[in-house]
Amino acid sequence: MHELIRLSFAPSFGLHGLGDAAVLAEEDGGRLALTTDSYVVSPLFFPGGDIGELAVNGTVNDLAMAGARPLYLTAGFIIEEGFPLEDLARVVDSMARAAEAAGVRVVAGDTKVVERGKGDGLYVNTAGVGRVPPGVRLSPARIRAGDGILVSGPLGRHGVAVMAERTGLAFEPAVLSDTAPLAGLADALLSAGGEGVRIMRDPTRGGLATTLKEFALESALAMRVEEALLPVPPGVRGACELLGLDPFYVANEGILVAVVAPDVSEYVLEAVRGHPLGAEAVLAGRVLEEPGEMVLLATRAGGSRLMDMLEGEQLPRIC
Amino acid sequence: MHELIRLSFAPSFGLHGLGDAAVLAEEDGGRLALTTDSYVVSPLFFPGGDIGELAVNGTVNDLAMAGARPLYLTAGFIIEEGFPLEDLARVVDSMARAAEAAGVRVVAGDTKVVERGKGDGLYVNTAGVGRVPPGVRLSPARIRAGDGILVSGPLGRHGVAVMAERTGLAFEPAVLSDTAPLAGLADALLSAGGEGVRIMRDPTRGGLATTLKEFALESALAMRVEEALLPVPPGVRGACELLGLDPFYVANEGILVAVVAPDVSEYVLEAVRGHPLGAEAVLAGRVLEEPGEMVLLATRAGGSRLMDMLEGEQLPRIC
Repeated sequence: MHELIRLSFAPSFGLHGLGDAAVLAEEDGGRLALTTDSYVVSPLFFPGGDIGELAVNGTVNDLAMAGARPLYLTAGFIIEEGFPLEDLARVVDSMARAAEAAGVRVVAGDTKVVERGKGDGLYVNTAGVGRVPPGVRLSPARIRAGDGILVSGPLGRHGVAVMAERTGLAFEPAVLSDTAPLAGLADALLSAGGEGVRIMRDPTRGGLATTLKEFALESALAMRVEEALLPVPPGVRGACELLGLDPFYVANEGILVAVVAPDVSEYVLEAVRGHPLGAEAVLAGRVLEEPGEMVLLATRAGGSRLMDMLEGEQLPRIC
Repeated sequence: MHELIRLSFAPSFGLHGLGDAAVLAEEDGGRLALTTDSYVVSPLFFPGGDIGELAVNGTVNDLAMAGARPLYLTAGFIIEEGFPLEDLARVVDSMARAAEAAGVRVVAGDTKVVERGKGDGLYVNTAGVGRVPPGVRLSPARIRAGDGILVSGPLGRHGVAVMAERTGLAFEPAVLSDTAPLAGLADALLSAGGEGVRIMRDPTRGGLATTLKEFALESALAMRVEEALLPVPPGVRGACELLGLDPFYVANEGILVAVVAPDVSEYVLEAVRGHPLGAEAVLAGRVLEEPGEMVLLATRAGGSRLMDMLEGEQLPRIC
């Protein structure tokens, strides 16, 4: 269904794709970035966060990944009749705190109530507006063979945290969602790398593998990353083994993947590591000329396997 | 519940209110308008429109009522598993056509699928961005005693059309939703009235009475309208009698109410009547000094009755 929707929606509205922020040239030479996301995560509260914080950070991150400074958010709530008001207050409070932390203002809101059985407690939509500073040029078309692939932090935390809450399983050590606003980290990265930063994306649904596959398809180049370099926390690793998941396909909500020119990659890595959200950042691999449109994982065992996009719904309703 | 939400949300986000577009001053002296609305109308298809057209026009109208030229929309879809893809295609197509008619671009989109029984077919969120031209100053604080109250067209059509579809009742003559983009009409009105235009609002949920009551509360003045001047189509009148509704409280989706200075009111009326959506416009009353914060309906019978805000949910899920 997702694929059908994607195929029918984007052309109807003349969009290149869904999910990323649109960057719009304005008459005065400035550029506006615009994005929207609906959040239907179940459960609404999970270790390390809740739907409200997620809805603010997720939309802030869509803007930040387009190179924009996030400015304003709108918030739309679809509330099932009978949803506890104290839970609603918790979510709203969490959104207000997340917006403050991310330096954005929620400037418009809307609420709709649907009958019992016609919703699932609460759905939240956030749309975001930002401004892209002059000089920022992010595009997969700018990726070149030899570029470095930077991963800003540990993988798989959000998806595993939601899954743990849903299944009632307790993992040791406990895994908290990584939900966080990436605008500051993106800013540090862009300041350090300048035009050497080709593209950034936050590997949410479908995880790292899906984001790398998108880069590969959009640049017609190969992305090669080394398993031994990719940071997977012990809790995530254990949970994935137990649940039969691949951590490279599990959703993240507080890390980014960037492709950077070789001459700036070490400098960019240092800048990212200097940011609280990037302390565990790594240069995990390189862009290769061949095999075009492919993602290669160099395994710990010394082999190599192809990573494709996430097929189907590995984790339904994680965001 | 609505009231509780309103009371808790607005302060949490530092908003003056919910539902209207926010107007934001920018560094370059321009003003950005921003708004959001979720649409949960049931049924999704109704005489004269559908959820897609409504979602585009409703958000365009929120921007237009703030005096903004609508530019961009985002669209978020929450789809219940099993929802017919041909219905989805109809809605998307309808949105694309409505956007073209309104002169806006849908620039970003998102889709989420929820399990069967966790939605009601389809919910749509639209957020909108517009720009407020220099010189437009709309505020209830600018309303003065003696100002004219302009109503741009026939009342009650959207609410009755949705109600007819829901109840399966056929009204004679048939009533079609008035859903339409008001940006052109608002532009004509502002061009004619200039700073003499105090405020505009589209009387959606809660109808004309609720909008007038908002004006009265926000200006601390009295709004007096004459029943004999207010245009209620025969089909709406008949349906309201049958269903026990008051047409002045029924939702509209293609008309506006404006308060205009006395010296420009006739000129503004002429301009509005010259627009296809304003052919039946009337000056339906005046702003009075007293009784402050009240709305008076001068009845056909020569009496006078107070109109208050809509209490409770006269028509659930009409938008």
